[in-house]
Amino acid sequence: MSGTDRTQASIVGGPRIILIEPQLGENVGAVARAMLNCGIDRMSLVNPREGWPNQRAVTMASGATEVLDKAELFASAEEAMAGLTRVYATTARPRELSARVVTPRQAALEMRAAFEAGDEVGVLFGPERSGLTNDHIVLADTVISVPLNPAYSSLNLAQAVLVVAYEWFTAGDETPPQELALSGTRLAEKHEMLELFERLERELNAGGFFRAEDLRPSVIRNMRAMLQRGQLTDQEVRTFHGMISALTRSWQQTQNAKRRRGEWDDEE
Amino acid sequence: MSGTDRTQASIVGGPRIILIEPQLGENVGAVARAMLNCGIDRMSLVNPREGWPNQRAVTMASGATEVLDKAELFASAEEAMAGLTRVYATTARPRELSARVVTPRQAALEMRAAFEAGDEVGVLFGPERSGLTNDHIVLADTVISVPLNPAYSSLNLAQAVLVVAYEWFTAGDETPPQELALSGTRLAEKHEMLELFERLERELNAGGFFRAEDLRPSVIRNMRAMLQRGQLTDQEVRTFHGMISALTRSWQQTQNAKRRRGEWDDEE
Repeated sequence: MSGTDRTQASIVGGPRIILIEPQLGENVGAVARAMLNCGIDRMSLVNPREGWPNQRAVTMASGATEVLDKAELFASAEEAMAGLTRVYATTARPRELSARVVTPRQAALEMRAAFEAGDEVGVLFGPERSGLTNDHIVLADTVISVPLNPAYSSLNLAQAVLVVAYEWFTAGDETPPQELALSGTRLAEKHEMLELFERLERELNAGGFFRAEDLRPSVIRNMRAMLQRGQLTDQEVRTFHGMISALTRSWQQTQNAKRRRGEWDDEE
Repeated sequence: MSGTDRTQASIVGGPRIILIEPQLGENVGAVARAMLNCGIDRMSLVNPREGWPNQRAVTMASGATEVLDKAELFASAEEAMAGLTRVYATTARPRELSARVVTPRQAALEMRAAFEAGDEVGVLFGPERSGLTNDHIVLADTVISVPLNPAYSSLNLAQAVLVVAYEWFTAGDETPPQELALSGTRLAEKHEMLELFERLERELNAGGFFRAEDLRPSVIRNMRAMLQRGQLTDQEVRTFHGMISALTRSWQQTQNAKRRRGEWDDEE
C-alpha cells in the first residue's frame, strides 16, 4: 500500500524493540520498516550474527534507515535490558514456566499507559529460527503471545514485530473506524435529494414506469431508499440530474428518429 | 515466533484474498504464509506478472503451500470479483473519489458479520509498486486504509495482507487478553500463602530483621504485598519454603564454623 508522505512529520517514540541475535541482516532491515510504519524508532541489537552495520539491512530497510542509523548494539540481552523498567518477551505460550501472558492488543494498552507514566518499556524478539530461550523470557515481566491459526502459527521476525508495533500504533490512533471520504465535495442536503427524487419520479411517470397505480407508493419508497443508501454528494446529485436529462433526451431522439422513418414504438 | 503445531486442525475459511497483478512470486508466497497464519486459505490471482504456478512462491510459502495449491487464477479483476457480494479494496485514503473508508479493525467486524450471514466476501490488494487503481477501487464497496505513521506508511504486500488477515483472525478469536499461564501447576491457596508469610516472618524475627518494633506491622504488610503480587503457584510456595530453610541453614553453618574457629560474629 502506498501513501507515504515525506512532508508529514514522522510520529516516533514508543517501546524499544530488542532483537536478540538476529540471524539475517535482511530481517533487521524489514524490522526497521515495520517499526517506522508504526511510529517506533528505537531498536536495540544483541549480537547480530552477520555483524553490524550491515549493508543488507540498509538495502531492505528502504527508507527506514533512520531506525538502523541510531540502533544500539549490545553484547548480551541483560545489557540491552539494563535501563528498562518494563519488558515484554514475544514467544509462543511458554510450556515450562509460569508466566503472565497477554495478547498484543492488551500489551499495547499496557505499554501506552507505561510509556505515558514515564516508564522505559522494551519488547524482546528472539532469533528467527529458535525464538527466545526460557532464560530470556524470565528476564521479562510479561509474555506477548500472538493468537494465530494453531496449525500454522509461525510468524517471521518482521511480521511478529509488525503485529506488536501495529497494535502499539493503533492503541494511540484516533482514526474513525469508518467514515465517508468526500475528496473536497460535501454530502447532499436533504432538499437536494428530495428535488432529485421528485424530478426522477416525474420523468419516470412520463415514461410509463408506474404500471400499477396501487404499487406506486412502495415502488417510490424503494427507489428513494436505494438512492439514500448511496450517501450522494452535492456533485453526484448534479451528475444524476444530468443523467436523467441525457436519458430522456436519448428516448426523445430515438422516438423522433422513428417518427421520421415512419416507425412507431410498440411500447407507446 | 515459533509455535506451529501440525497436530492441530487448521482453522480456515475467511474472506477471499485477491491479488491484482502481483509482481514477484516471493511476495505471493509471503502472502500465503500471512493468510494461513490467520486462518484464511482462499487466494485469487489476477495476472501474476511472473506467471503461474511459480516456484519462488512455493519456496517462500514454506509450509503454506496448501494456499497456493488451491489459488484460483483469473484474467481480470472483474472476473475475480464476479461471484462476490461484498468487496473491500485496500489502499491509501482515496484522493479523487468519494468512498466509504474503514480501518482494518472495522473491516474485520463487518467481514465476520457478512461471512456469518453467508455473503461471499473478498479483499483486493494491488500490485506491489503502484497499488490499486481508481478503476479497481470503484468496483469495491468499501476502502480499507491502514492507519500508520503518515511520514512512512508504505506497507509491502505481505505485510498489508498480514494486517488485514490478523484483524480478521483477532475479531473471531477468544483468547483472553491476559492470563497467568501455569504450565501444569495451580495458584497457591490463601492458607498456603499465609503459612509461608508466618514462617518467613518468624525466621526473619529470629534473625533480627525487625529492628524497630513500631514499624514491624507496616514492614510485614509491605513484604506480604510484594509476595502476593507475584501470584505464586503451589510449587513456588514449596520452593520458597526450601529457600528459607537453605538460608537459615547457611547462616547457622557459618556461625558454627566461626565458633569452631573461635570467632564471633559482630552482629550477634
